Amino acid sequence: MSGLAAFGVEGLPEIEAGAKLGEMIAAAGVLVDGDLVVVSQKVVSKAEGRVRSLSSAIPGAEARKLAAVLGKEPALVQLILDESAEVLRAERGVLITETHHGFVCANAGIDSSNLPEDPDASARRIRGELSPAVAVVIADSFGRAWRLGQAEVAIGCAGLVPLDDWRGRADAHGRELEATLIAIADEAASAADLAKAKDSRVPVAIVRGLSRFVTAEDGPGAQALRRPRADDLFR
Amino acid sequence: MSGLAAFGVEGLPEIEAGAKLGEMIAAAGVLVDGDLVVVSQKVVSKAEGRVRSLSSAIPGAEARKLAAVLGKEPALVQLILDESAEVLRAERGVLITETHHGFVCANAGIDSSNLPEDPDASARRIRGELSPAVAVVIADSFGRAWRLGQAEVAIGCAGLVPLDDWRGRADAHGRELEATLIAIADEAASAADLAKAKDSRVPVAIVRGLSRFVTAEDGPGAQALRRPRADDLFR
Repeated sequence: MSGLAAFGVEGLPEIEAGAKLGEMIAAAGVLVDGDLVVVSQKVVSKAEGRVRSLSSAIPGAEARKLAAVLGKEPALVQLILDESAEVLRAERGVLITETHHGFVCANAGIDSSNLPEDPDASARRIRGELSPAVAVVIADSFGRAWRLGQAEVAIGCAGLVPLDDWRGRADAHGRELEATLIAIADEAASAADLAKAKDSRVPVAIVRGLSRFVTAEDGPGAQALRRPRADDLFR
Repeated sequence: MSGLAAFGVEGLPEIEAGAKLGEMIAAAGVLVDGDLVVVSQKVVSKAEGRVRSLSSAIPGAEARKLAAVLGKEPALVQLILDESAEVLRAERGVLITETHHGFVCANAGIDSSNLPEDPDASARRIRGELSPAVAVVIADSFGRAWRLGQAEVAIGCAGLVPLDDWRGRADAHGRELEATLIAIADEAASAADLAKAKDSRVPVAIVRGLSRFVTAEDGPGAQALRRPRADDLFR
């Protein structure tokens, strides 16, 4: 097939803790071989019980100090710190941290829930309940350092080539500045978001037309998309 | 229509300096009302003659100094500095600058050509050669501070709502951490990239299904996606 189609999966039941997301998606009966299933982080976290109430967090000294600087609730800052390996910025009301997974994002990715413990494992688990001929992405909205608005990115994936490596493929210009490593998983998460942007309550979308990036193995996951700390110029 | 479709526009003639891109795209005969036309920066720059040869650049003291640090060609560094308002990072072989347009990216966005002088104006001009019922995005691949790989973003647009503002729309959770401002133009650029990723020589893709973001007016353009310097925590 030429090109790409993306659409939300309608009519899924309400997702509760313990839900078997893969089975629910399979039951919708819309998947075909080579499809990419993009699942919102929010429902994965919900299915995995990754919800902590504010009242369960007892703010320590650092949380109280940051909360005062940022004008945030101390218990919420404690929840964020609990999910974080390092605070990168805490100013002007914005708290940017590196999560324990190695994602750099606002508030450690916490909105109504924490990120999954291991989003690549979540993707593999969901994929295990689906046909091995489909790929799974867990998607979340991240801000960007120099651009306004959030774009959806892949925090987990299975069965997908996350980065398409064009290095070494011919470029007739003789210069080395072309895009050479394309973030397929992130671009697919963004495409899925647009397909369901009319109603953010639809938690799953299918992206069809990317079968050339779907693999039999689970593959490296979205961990492959993290820039190694040693190469990070903006910490 | 529900969902999204994206496909490359096949069979466009080779783009030369002076080409009327909008007319060429219209002649392909594939557009329908509400479509979004995503055009690669590379061909816009080529049509606008935004190519400078290395031999035309006479490296000054700063370019020679940076070139030595980075292991880059001094003339190329001079071309990059000519397109830049500020150098953010110059280390480990990487040169990140803010362009005169206000984009933060590697090498001022130069690969085989400079970025268009005013990409929003380019988008408006191309749109002027098309039906006013379609929108235009000029797309380029940008790296990300904390993620590997490049994703396509909008450096110019016309007739499109670049940011979908959900602030104030209801969220039942009572927390304020949901994604509230969605970078529609960037997500659409990414979707278009996937639709033609099989062959990077296809310079134009159509994204269909986003007519709710297509406007009669040219609108604010991709300038609206720049994070104001005063809000930049990572300079």
